[in-house]
Amino acid sequence: MKILALSGSLRGASLNAALLRATARLASPPLVVVFSTSLGNLPLFNPDLELSPPASVLELRKAVGLAEALVIASPEYAHGISGVMKNALDWLVSYEGFVNKPVALFNASPRAHHAHDALLEVLRTMSANIVEEACVTVPLLGSGLTEEAMARDPAVTATIRRALHALSAAVDPGASRGPSFPVG
Amino acid sequence: MKILALSGSLRGASLNAALLRATARLASPPLVVVFSTSLGNLPLFNPDLELSPPASVLELRKAVGLAEALVIASPEYAHGISGVMKNALDWLVSYEGFVNKPVALFNASPRAHHAHDALLEVLRTMSANIVEEACVTVPLLGSGLTEEAMARDPAVTATIRRALHALSAAVDPGASRGPSFPVG
Repeated sequence: MKILALSGSLRGASLNAALLRATARLASPPLVVVFSTSLGNLPLFNPDLELSPPASVLELRKAVGLAEALVIASPEYAHGISGVMKNALDWLVSYEGFVNKPVALFNASPRAHHAHDALLEVLRTMSANIVEEACVTVPLLGSGLTEEAMARDPAVTATIRRALHALSAAVDPGASRGPSFPVG
Repeated sequence: MKILALSGSLRGASLNAALLRATARLASPPLVVVFSTSLGNLPLFNPDLELSPPASVLELRKAVGLAEALVIASPEYAHGISGVMKNALDWLVSYEGFVNKPVALFNASPRAHHAHDALLEVLRTMSANIVEEACVTVPLLGSGLTEEAMARDPAVTATIRRALHALSAAVDPGASRGPSFPVG
């Protein structure tokens, strides 16, 4: 089961990116979490380009289409969704592979609720399947935790594992009863 | 008095851009409205670049700094601010020339309130001086009006002129009593 992780920050030392990379470390087979680095390569959204989307847009859409679920973590800038994250979502609005995609929204900054609420509204409007039990708050702001430390911290890892469990259960409700996909 | 107009859409046939270009046509001296084409040239916001911002960012900041007020018109995408507009604002968050800048927010689509409300929240958080009387709704969605038609339409031109009047009054409360700037 492949999960795509999208960070709304391009900062090298981004807490949101570190949280998602730690999540990728903690995922165990058959779950695979892939951290996407493609958001920073996207052009600014222009509806005129929809007829023949740039390669970077097609690449993001393909990665989203191939993923069985998404994990999103994004900073709040000036009480709003980061432009980086909203720009990526603007490119996905018309992509039918996004519809009904199970999504977990991680919030690394519990005091920041404006962007989190706005992101939920946007994702719902895009017909994402928000998996409530997989939407977790991980109070990392000011913690100084690195990706390595997050992947070792008992509270953080427990929260991430709980979210991944809920997300995978939403993707494949029959998984706990054994393989449910036809083989061969 | 120089006013900078910022559109949140890069679409060639954007109603928001057309509204702002029509506004530029209708402004009469000493008021000058300049339509900015720089938002589409900005890179995606990356805090790591703040130490040495790209030329396009410096250009936008300079234009904002030189303007005595801003007029903003932006579409709503999936119940959110367009990524293009939010990305531009993200680059302006740390720019002190934005603080207390008088801003008029034009809404070309009265049924779209999510992005409008979110934009007001972001602009207030950035310490913009939102000029309420200059924030107008111009019901253009579905009107099929071109920039030229907008600049001729009695209802549209009256609304735009009212907004410009309120905006210039906010910039220079003494203007109606004659020149208030020292000469020479």
